[in-house]
Amino acid sequence: MRIIIIGGRGTVGKRVAERFSRHHEVLTAGRSGGDLRVDISEAGSIAAMFHETKNIDAVICAAGEVRWDIFENLAEDDYLNGIRSKLMGQVNLVRIGQEFITEGGSVTLSSGILADDPVAMTSAAAQVNGALHSFVRAAAPELKRGLRLNVVSAGLVADAAAKYGEFFPGHDPVPMQRVVNGYVRSVEGYGSGEVIRVYQ
Amino acid sequence: MRIIIIGGRGTVGKRVAERFSRHHEVLTAGRSGGDLRVDISEAGSIAAMFHETKNIDAVICAAGEVRWDIFENLAEDDYLNGIRSKLMGQVNLVRIGQEFITEGGSVTLSSGILADDPVAMTSAAAQVNGALHSFVRAAAPELKRGLRLNVVSAGLVADAAAKYGEFFPGHDPVPMQRVVNGYVRSVEGYGSGEVIRVYQ
Repeated sequence: MRIIIIGGRGTVGKRVAERFSRHHEVLTAGRSGGDLRVDISEAGSIAAMFHETKNIDAVICAAGEVRWDIFENLAEDDYLNGIRSKLMGQVNLVRIGQEFITEGGSVTLSSGILADDPVAMTSAAAQVNGALHSFVRAAAPELKRGLRLNVVSAGLVADAAAKYGEFFPGHDPVPMQRVVNGYVRSVEGYGSGEVIRVYQ
Repeated sequence: MRIIIIGGRGTVGKRVAERFSRHHEVLTAGRSGGDLRVDISEAGSIAAMFHETKNIDAVICAAGEVRWDIFENLAEDDYLNGIRSKLMGQVNLVRIGQEFITEGGSVTLSSGILADDPVAMTSAAAQVNGALHSFVRAAAPELKRGLRLNVVSAGLVADAAAKYGEFFPGHDPVPMQRVVNGYVRSVEGYGSGEVIRVYQ
């Protein structure tokens, strides 16, 4: 398969790219580096990426940012910026990508455990993740040409535990191998409309 | 209690307003009628409503619109309009209302079964409902002054079954009494951060 991995240099994306590179042709994509340049918060940038890249069988997105802060500090724009990036960025990947991805191909999005089990300071992040879960379940059955759509929702990932563990009290870090396997199951499996929870 | 019910003339809001009027002082609010005028899709309109209305103990929102259509017909703006209305409209009610609502008061939002169990043409609506579920769980524990926050997620409601039942194949309509009780549980109960599912 020929696979675009957006955010392929991030904590999760890097591991996912390593795994898929062993068996597939991987194109990494990001705002500041990789084989392709894309800013998922701009629909035009997503369209440009698909126009300049042919025969894509799978798209994996491990990108998208949402501000963390206590509820009383979060302004309307903090919510909207997260929505534009992590929510609509990923919705637009599916919306635009549906015309370009090869028949029977797949899109795999990334949400996170905050959808189901939030921690302090995550009201903006949690809502984006929860939206992605419901979006994937609703949109997947409507895709044409055998396209599949899933979302991987990981807990606190092991590679980020040193940096972010203090914000997830009582959360056991999820081994990276299990996180990567969530993406493998989506891309190489045959399910669609799945919320693939990788929690510890 | 002195309670604002936004969307108090809609299918659900009307029944909710009837019930609460028996025991409480109810102010209905909406874009085109009611005791107060408010357009929840505009933060400034929400702020104006709270500035002109004192001593509010509870806010119930049964308003917010999202376009229904098949996935390939939904444009980015269809998602964004739904987000501005039903999602950020309700988030802003909490964000702005937290400064005005009396100590120990509550905000009760409305989502819907599509968050958990979507039907065709609802990818924009489902994601808004899913976002609300995760938002409420994340934000409620961070509210100050004993404020509470819940969301009622109803299935196909009986009063709408004649009009919308065909879009919910196999869904049994939920009796209005049960739907209204979801709001009663939120406002008169003591729970917070709850997704009150009223499914049949």
